[in-house]
Amino acid sequence: MSKTPETLKANYDKLMANIKEITVLQTAANIIYWDMETKIPPKGVNLRSQQLGVISQVLHRMITKPEIETLLSKIEKHSEYGSLNELKKRNVYLVRKTYDEQTKLPEKLVAETAKQEAIAIDVWKKAKAKKKFSMFNPELEKMLELKKQAAEILMGVKGTATPYDALIDIYEPKMAAEKISRIFSSLRDGLVSILRKCQDSPKQPNPSVLKRKVPFDIQRKISKEVAKFIGYDVVSPKAGGRIDETEHPFTTGYYDDVRITTHYYEDDMASSLFSVLHEGGHAIYDQNLKQEWMFQPIGSSCSLGFHESQSRFVENVIGRSREFWTYFYPKLKELTGNTFSDLALDDFVRAVNHVRPSKIRVEADEVTYCLHIIVRFEIEQELIPGKIDVADLPEIWNKKYNEYLGVDIENDSEGVMQDIHWASGDFGYFPTYALGNIIGGQLLSSMEKDIPNWRGQISEGNFQNVKGWMTGKVHQQGDLYDPAVLIRKITGEEMNFKHYLEYLDKKCSWVYGY
Amino acid sequence: MSKTPETLKANYDKLMANIKEITVLQTAANIIYWDMETKIPPKGVNLRSQQLGVISQVLHRMITKPEIETLLSKIEKHSEYGSLNELKKRNVYLVRKTYDEQTKLPEKLVAETAKQEAIAIDVWKKAKAKKKFSMFNPELEKMLELKKQAAEILMGVKGTATPYDALIDIYEPKMAAEKISRIFSSLRDGLVSILRKCQDSPKQPNPSVLKRKVPFDIQRKISKEVAKFIGYDVVSPKAGGRIDETEHPFTTGYYDDVRITTHYYEDDMASSLFSVLHEGGHAIYDQNLKQEWMFQPIGSSCSLGFHESQSRFVENVIGRSREFWTYFYPKLKELTGNTFSDLALDDFVRAVNHVRPSKIRVEADEVTYCLHIIVRFEIEQELIPGKIDVADLPEIWNKKYNEYLGVDIENDSEGVMQDIHWASGDFGYFPTYALGNIIGGQLLSSMEKDIPNWRGQISEGNFQNVKGWMTGKVHQQGDLYDPAVLIRKITGEEMNFKHYLEYLDKKCSWVYGY
Repeated sequence: MSKTPETLKANYDKLMANIKEITVLQTAANIIYWDMETKIPPKGVNLRSQQLGVISQVLHRMITKPEIETLLSKIEKHSEYGSLNELKKRNVYLVRKTYDEQTKLPEKLVAETAKQEAIAIDVWKKAKAKKKFSMFNPELEKMLELKKQAAEILMGVKGTATPYDALIDIYEPKMAAEKISRIFSSLRDGLVSILRKCQDSPKQPNPSVLKRKVPFDIQRKISKEVAKFIGYDVVSPKAGGRIDETEHPFTTGYYDDVRITTHYYEDDMASSLFSVLHEGGHAIYDQNLKQEWMFQPIGSSCSLGFHESQSRFVENVIGRSREFWTYFYPKLKELTGNTFSDLALDDFVRAVNHVRPSKIRVEADEVTYCLHIIVRFEIEQELIPGKIDVADLPEIWNKKYNEYLGVDIENDSEGVMQDIHWASGDFGYFPTYALGNIIGGQLLSSMEKDIPNWRGQISEGNFQNVKGWMTGKVHQQGDLYDPAVLIRKITGEEMNFKHYLEYLDKKCSWVYGY
Repeated sequence: MSKTPETLKANYDKLMANIKEITVLQTAANIIYWDMETKIPPKGVNLRSQQLGVISQVLHRMITKPEIETLLSKIEKHSEYGSLNELKKRNVYLVRKTYDEQTKLPEKLVAETAKQEAIAIDVWKKAKAKKKFSMFNPELEKMLELKKQAAEILMGVKGTATPYDALIDIYEPKMAAEKISRIFSSLRDGLVSILRKCQDSPKQPNPSVLKRKVPFDIQRKISKEVAKFIGYDVVSPKAGGRIDETEHPFTTGYYDDVRITTHYYEDDMASSLFSVLHEGGHAIYDQNLKQEWMFQPIGSSCSLGFHESQSRFVENVIGRSREFWTYFYPKLKELTGNTFSDLALDDFVRAVNHVRPSKIRVEADEVTYCLHIIVRFEIEQELIPGKIDVADLPEIWNKKYNEYLGVDIENDSEGVMQDIHWASGDFGYFPTYALGNIIGGQLLSSMEKDIPNWRGQISEGNFQNVKGWMTGKVHQQGDLYDPAVLIRKITGEEMNFKHYLEYLDKKCSWVYGY
């Protein structure tokens, strides 16, 4: 009997033990971050930035220690390497990828970036409250400089065409700005055409009904009901999630502890309701990853684009469907007393689907949403190679918003400072939001073939089958495939924005009667 | 010019940079623990136990890495070592102590203990809810075994007389069971004598007035007012603390982010009010450590006994004084509407100072409190060397409670399972509660000489001078001295329980009119 396969197995197991430790610490860091956003006493922010810095540094050291390289080499060069199954090979591939990227990033750069993230987010919040971009400018510049350094290094490792592509690749593996440009260009034309049809229609929804006041405590109850519908448990003794309140909603967590946040506005109950659906869509992805893959590289999501496909699908395809409201509108009426008692179901559904170019991305409708993304993508494409300066961002931003969306930005809080992403250094992240819509459209088109009666089921309050389909096709695939491969596996085709446009056009033609 | 002092300085700075990193990660772990107690979704507990385990393991590796030993040796053996100031020498001493202790504890034992802590706490909660000690028994046994292993190892390093002494030394450096035994024996006699006088007096307070119902939201307001009085800021934009709700109140945090918890009972408003004062006393100690010592070993508290002296002082010496209530009773009346409008100040103050042997430590009055501690200390003294078994704890517990406190324990939730400490493996911790009372009495006696009019000040709502005295004498001394040395520095004498007895006797003679 040869001892070789045993050594291969032993080294593989050792590698996975290392990865488990790293993963566990990373999930602890997520809680620390969540706490900073939700519970931290104001004075604690500086200490928190140091905590996040140290944890990043420790994680960086753990993934880059020589033992990882030794184990990887022994596994990869082993004569029986080919005998490893597909899952194990993918795990080895993913570790190798992270290792190569991380070893090239100096520890100091990683720690400085993590520290700067906490500081920049804090200053961004204050600057946003004061509507003063000049306050935020220097911190954003520092963050951009750090990210440019990282991008230069990562470009070399990943072999991307540009530094910006290296950043995009972090969130959407093997995607590139050039391809995104092409997709976005056609997508924009399609969206603008739908937008025109909506705007030109004589039949306009009345979104002002959504301004009717709903007290915070009622909205909190609505959140719980909405969460219950999608199977995101935040109340039972077996709950694996919770809902808190932050300026900017987000999701964080891992398997059995996945948390979302929302923001309540008394005169905009829809804002929080759709945030909960959106973040809930993210949450059920993370909660439904394959249990036996926990702590392995494959036990995580495929890409941010795929993640966003889940949140946008739950928020929009399900949450803004006439069928969801057929089921949920009576519940909403019950919870809100007389607030909507005079309003017919269809008028409500048309209101939550009204299309109107606006200033704030997170409040954008489905048709104009991607236009917000395209603005950001185009700016990043120039910002990373230094073709434009941070100080010029407000002017460029406002100009593009006027051009693409026809709106006048009056101050930078409703303009360039509306999102947290650049403060947290997440350049290259925005495109994934639009990719998520596109992927969501493709998934819908495939799902309809498997569950032709899905709309009927939703109108009866049954989300189980749809969720089950997504869990099987997406959630349980974890990070086994690159996004382009997974799209092909599920839908049988390449990334294709036409499904999304078709879906939108169909819905809008009902809403606007064109 | 010799280069030697520079090398000494460089090595010292390197050592401190290591310690800073460790300290920062430790403070992050505290937040992770806090989250587990306050916010975690139930399903997340297992993942959390793994997170705490990994962080402990990483911390253990950081403090025991060979570089620490190299730096320590170079510093200690340096020809100019004598030129380091007292602060630096103490820092080196404290690192050496931790290093020697931690290098002797196997990493596996440390990780297992951290994991077992999370599991045992979880099971303890469930067992307590179900009043089933048999559920908790196996987890407690596992925890005890792990702690015995640690105690054996630490005894060798610390050179203590017994393994139990090695555990005590973790919380109260250079204290030992034999010394505690002697102190507790005399203390018990003194307390029993005061208890008799209270019980024999014809003038009895009426504590039933404290059962008057106060709604939770009012109690939350009271908490904030109480916190404000002691200067524990939980509301302003500069707040460095927060108050949450847990079964068992606790304090955790570091400098600018120190958090307390409390538990509200509708028919026992005093329970939470005094918890907030107690935990607040802990919190202001941690918040008022010397700013420039942050992240250094000396930038932490002296001992758990000293920590408890601060919490008990604020809770009892201040919080149960007639003078505090002269100031606060009108506020309480205002907040609670008619609840206490018929009740005279003195009747209220006598009620919160009533003495009555009871089953639950955290609800015990000042006279009987230490008797609860003595029970636990005596049990630990037998449990660690294996003279008694975990399975026998309920019987032994109930017997001692009957003997010392004259109460009949009806189930283990109000008996041996009332405290979290053993679940979290904190054997040797309990004695520090009584030591805290003793130290608090000594501090009071010294403070009275410096601020003869302190009672007058408190009755005017002015806690500033008393707090300032404590900050200067205790908080700002950090961990510069061992507890016995600090007591001597502040009071000019050794640990002396007589001051506490005198203070108690004086107060009780007023409350009970003997």
